[in-house]
Amino acid sequence: MKDLKSLIRTIPDFPKSGILFRDITPILQDGEAFKQVILTFKKETPKNVKKVVAIESRGFIFGSPLSYLLGVGFVPIRKSGKLPWKKIKMEYDLEYGVDTIEIHQDGIKKGERVILIDDLLATGGTAFASVKLIEKCGGIVEKILFLVELTDLNGRERLKDYDVFSIIKF
Amino acid sequence: MKDLKSLIRTIPDFPKSGILFRDITPILQDGEAFKQVILTFKKETPKNVKKVVAIESRGFIFGSPLSYLLGVGFVPIRKSGKLPWKKIKMEYDLEYGVDTIEIHQDGIKKGERVILIDDLLATGGTAFASVKLIEKCGGIVEKILFLVELTDLNGRERLKDYDVFSIIKF
Repeated sequence: MKDLKSLIRTIPDFPKSGILFRDITPILQDGEAFKQVILTFKKETPKNVKKVVAIESRGFIFGSPLSYLLGVGFVPIRKSGKLPWKKIKMEYDLEYGVDTIEIHQDGIKKGERVILIDDLLATGGTAFASVKLIEKCGGIVEKILFLVELTDLNGRERLKDYDVFSIIKF
Repeated sequence: MKDLKSLIRTIPDFPKSGILFRDITPILQDGEAFKQVILTFKKETPKNVKKVVAIESRGFIFGSPLSYLLGVGFVPIRKSGKLPWKKIKMEYDLEYGVDTIEIHQDGIKKGERVILIDDLLATGGTAFASVKLIEKCGGIVEKILFLVELTDLNGRERLKDYDVFSIIKF
């Protein structure tokens, strides 16, 4: 087993001054470490899940192998304007301004149990909006998976009504 | 075996007037069809490949399960400003203007054989720039994989010095 946390590269002042960015690419580049991550996510996934929903774009990197391994469909949540067909939308507040995420109308069936996955849990704003978007589609969020959790930012509190799992905590 | 081509949804006038957009999300949403795609890519990958390089962001969806199955590292190529660490860049011409793609400096080792993967081959502009970026890093592109190829746009001609494979042709 690899020590995944030690593979994370910390970049000061990215994308802006004062932010310590946790760069996950050294884990991705390491075939053995990447496999360990995906197998951990698989182990954490409840058996009754019928779709993997992943948040653009780093969430795609973890969601699609999980979807492959489970043999269930993969559904992308994307930023506004990227998905081409009929969409359901959710707005959410940023520090300054508002952002919108979208999902295709036929991505999740009513009553379908899903996993939500992304690379990083910070304040939980995007994940919370994604959960609400899935629920607007009639889906049931069984569990939310992250590679990295920044515990100081209390994202887990924001998602307290849901089962949240993260592999690496800072 | 599923008929993958029949699952593609064609959207007129997206992202702009006059363009027929080939929407691949119905394939992703179908666990069995998605698995068929990934296993086809695996079968097409030469044995000596040491990295899977995927183009943001739909390329990630196919590149990461392939990387998982091969047990080799996954390296993202991203649009300008997205990668946090030391980067190598490549500019390329668009219809109007110029775009830049980037890769982390430590993503590919000198002499490493890689697969390049993306969802769609159109004119081949982004794929060609990606190949050149990989070669600037010292990597060797063994093969280029696409889910969909728009044959009218002659992307294959642009990539004629490379081994190109696509699953679905329009």
